[in-house]
Amino acid sequence: KAREKIITMDAVDIELLLDEIPREKMLRVFRMLPKTLAADTFAYMKSDQQQYIIESITDNEINNIMDEMFMDDTVDFLEEMPANVVKRVLKTTDAKTRHTINQLLRYPDGSAGSIMTTEYVDLKKEMTAREALRHIRITGVDSETINTCYVIDKERKLEGAISIRKIILSAPETLVSDMMTTEVKYLYTYDDQETSAFRFKKYDLLSMPVVDGENRLVGIITIDDIVDVIEQEATEDIEIMAAITPTDKPYTETGALGTFQKRIPWLLLLMISATFTGGILSSYETSLAIYPALVAFIPMFMDTGGNAGGQASVAVIRSLALNEVEFKDIFKIVWKELRVALLCGLIMAVVCFLKAMVIDARFTDGVNFVTALIVSITIFLTIVIAKLVGCVMPLLAKRVGFDPAVMASPFITTIVDALSLIIYFQIVRLFLPM
Amino acid sequence: KAREKIITMDAVDIELLLDEIPREKMLRVFRMLPKTLAADTFAYMKSDQQQYIIESITDNEINNIMDEMFMDDTVDFLEEMPANVVKRVLKTTDAKTRHTINQLLRYPDGSAGSIMTTEYVDLKKEMTAREALRHIRITGVDSETINTCYVIDKERKLEGAISIRKIILSAPETLVSDMMTTEVKYLYTYDDQETSAFRFKKYDLLSMPVVDGENRLVGIITIDDIVDVIEQEATEDIEIMAAITPTDKPYTETGALGTFQKRIPWLLLLMISATFTGGILSSYETSLAIYPALVAFIPMFMDTGGNAGGQASVAVIRSLALNEVEFKDIFKIVWKELRVALLCGLIMAVVCFLKAMVIDARFTDGVNFVTALIVSITIFLTIVIAKLVGCVMPLLAKRVGFDPAVMASPFITTIVDALSLIIYFQIVRLFLPM
Ligand SMILES: [Mg+2]
Ligand SMILES: [Mg+2]
Ligand SMILES: [Mg+2]
Ligand SMILES: [Mg+2]
Ligand SMILES: [Mg+2]
Ligand SMILES: [Mg+2]
Ligand SMILES: [Mg+2]
Ligand SMILES: [Mg+2]
Ligand SMILES: [Mg+2]
Ligand SMILES: [Mg+2]
Ligand SMILES: [Mg+2]
Ligand SMILES: [Mg+2]
Ligand SMILES: [Mg+2]
Repeated sequence: KAREKIITMDAVDIELLLDEIPREKMLRVFRMLPKTLAADTFAYMKSDQQQYIIESITDNEINNIMDEMFMDDTVDFLEEMPANVVKRVLKTTDAKTRHTINQLLRYPDGSAGSIMTTEYVDLKKEMTAREALRHIRITGVDSETINTCYVIDKERKLEGAISIRKIILSAPETLVSDMMTTEVKYLYTYDDQETSAFRFKKYDLLSMPVVDGENRLVGIITIDDIVDVIEQEATEDIEIMAAITPTDKPYTETGALGTFQKRIPWLLLLMISATFTGGILSSYETSLAIYPALVAFIPMFMDTGGNAGGQASVAVIRSLALNEVEFKDIFKIVWKELRVALLCGLIMAVVCFLKAMVIDARFTDGVNFVTALIVSITIFLTIVIAKLVGCVMPLLAKRVGFDPAVMASPFITTIVDALSLIIYFQIVRLFLPM
Repeated sequence: KAREKIITMDAVDIELLLDEIPREKMLRVFRMLPKTLAADTFAYMKSDQQQYIIESITDNEINNIMDEMFMDDTVDFLEEMPANVVKRVLKTTDAKTRHTINQLLRYPDGSAGSIMTTEYVDLKKEMTAREALRHIRITGVDSETINTCYVIDKERKLEGAISIRKIILSAPETLVSDMMTTEVKYLYTYDDQETSAFRFKKYDLLSMPVVDGENRLVGIITIDDIVDVIEQEATEDIEIMAAITPTDKPYTETGALGTFQKRIPWLLLLMISATFTGGILSSYETSLAIYPALVAFIPMFMDTGGNAGGQASVAVIRSLALNEVEFKDIFKIVWKELRVALLCGLIMAVVCFLKAMVIDARFTDGVNFVTALIVSITIFLTIVIAKLVGCVMPLLAKRVGFDPAVMASPFITTIVDALSLIIYFQIVRLFLPM
């Protein structure tokens, strides 16, 4: 009875359920599942669960799962397994499957080849709609999708694509060559997964064919895996922007040591840059000794500079990631950020001036009209420089082939901190007797 | 001949092409397009192009486009038009369409209702596979997708879902009720688009039915629009994390004034918080006057605190956004971040100590063993506190119903800046005679 209830459930939900119960029980329930559902559920499992199952079941059971699982999920699973498990799994599969797996495992991480699967429907130009449907009825059971079918020639070269909708809505005698579109959007195995995701988004596609260097169809990528790529790339960018080395693993699945390793290099690097800012600050020691009240405004300059620059850099980084802007737009961007900076700088300068006059001058020794003027000019210039540095740095990074996301707030802050302190003390020297 | 080439192109590519040429020519080319392609191209256009076209074509042409365009794109288009354009468009459509449009326009921005479309295939339980296919052949032409069809009863209540694949692969006499799954994942019109996206991702869906309060099927959401939602929500989070008020419009389409308005409130707010840090700093004026060398380390504490805290907060914010963690995981998260902080703190303290002894002590007056000790203890404590504040704040924000993304680096920095200065000068007082 429990079995009857479970087999109506979605594989995703079954996986969640199995993740909650003790392993022996999990294994027992898993072995009750019908072949296809077992394979689907297996594909959604975490690596440690997968390994436990493989180590607990018979070769025959392994073969059943491998038979049903789509190749992309098989490869994802094998990539995480220790060598002896991989060996045992490969031993149970037939020579052809083994060959395909070995080939797929060779595509570099992050390439289109590494996320494609090999179960698709291929049609021939000469088929009629009726023949195509018959062919789909035979081969479609094992395909990842039948929504789009691909037309190939005798050498497996990609000739066209055709949606199941078109086939169904056409008269039975229509030729595939008359129904198909030859304007197929396709990918090469070595294309970047980020590029792949961008084309899916641009053309609102559900799947895309992947060809090798000779234009032979070798696999397809489906939108559900692209959705994962999109999310993964966003996470990657967010992590880099926060000065964290990105990994594939979710936060919850990384241990303290792993997390530490992803963070410490950046903390060290940024600390060293901050040391230079400290050097600048101490080079104005005498000014601070004469006018100790000046020290109170330093955190405000440093934070505002970082924030104003961070706003500009993050806006540009995201825009670059979404392919909305590129390096050649640099003048347009600088011109826009300059105007934004002038507006922000003006408002902030006025507020700073009023605050210094109304509040600080009343409660703090040594703050007066001249101080208020110095502070508001400094904040104005800091914001202008911060926004310009902020918008230019990601574009330059992209230009020279670095990830623009590196040029987010943490890096911009260290640059701008130093600049704002120099501005501050130069203006102090201009307005106050030394 | 140019026409023949253009009509083989994808609507997305045609739109890109039309965006590059002068408006009069654009209009002429647009009017050459066949009905369906014209509607598809129109749906991809920017609002100003759409408005120009509507204002330049006949009522009959408008009606043709509206007829062919999917309802979600129609609504997206109308939302951006001025009242007189909306009025004219609605006048050309028939009463039923007008009614549907008016209903769709009423769903609040960001709800499932606001991104769904109304062109789907509905089947009845009693149909056979053959009848279903015949029905699909008739109604499928105008549907957004036929990949999944939905089964409804006489009152339009959702009873099940069935993929076209299942229908095609089944024997012609099989009943829809025997082929369909009753475990349908569905959404309510008032569900949040972010929740909708999360369910699409979780279950790897291509489309999802949307029902009203009485469980009647009122529309479907397709994955291509969900992909846009996912990207939009990531952009939103990234902007909030960088202290920018998020908007729907891309960076390139927002003017300087608009961008200024999105940034200035946060700069002002964060400036005021930074003022408190300034207040704390100036309250230690005397310590600084006695030991001026101490000032050189302030930027390093402030930046490192912000960076260490930002790393923790951004990791937690992203994890919350991906539904990997929730508030109840707070102890697990704090415990992990504590260990990460101890490791990072230790390494940073050692490096700071060595740097102070080897470099600073040699070149700067007033830096010695005691100073090095003070600096390394301060950096250690700063990192520990920064990481703890960083990981706890987003969880608390989520708990009280704020967007956790607000608790990213800019906010964490201002909190941690103040704390690190207090720690610094308390330790100074402990170790150095005043
Ligand atoms: Mg892979
Ligand atoms: Mg799209
Ligand atoms: Mg897949
Ligand atoms: Mg997948
Ligand atoms: Mg990447
Ligand atoms: Mg990237
Ligand atoms: Mg800072
Ligand atoms: Mg909408
Ligand atoms: Mg998924
Ligand atoms: Mg749509
Ligand atoms: Mg759309
Ligand atoms: Mg939202
Ligand atoms: Mg959000």
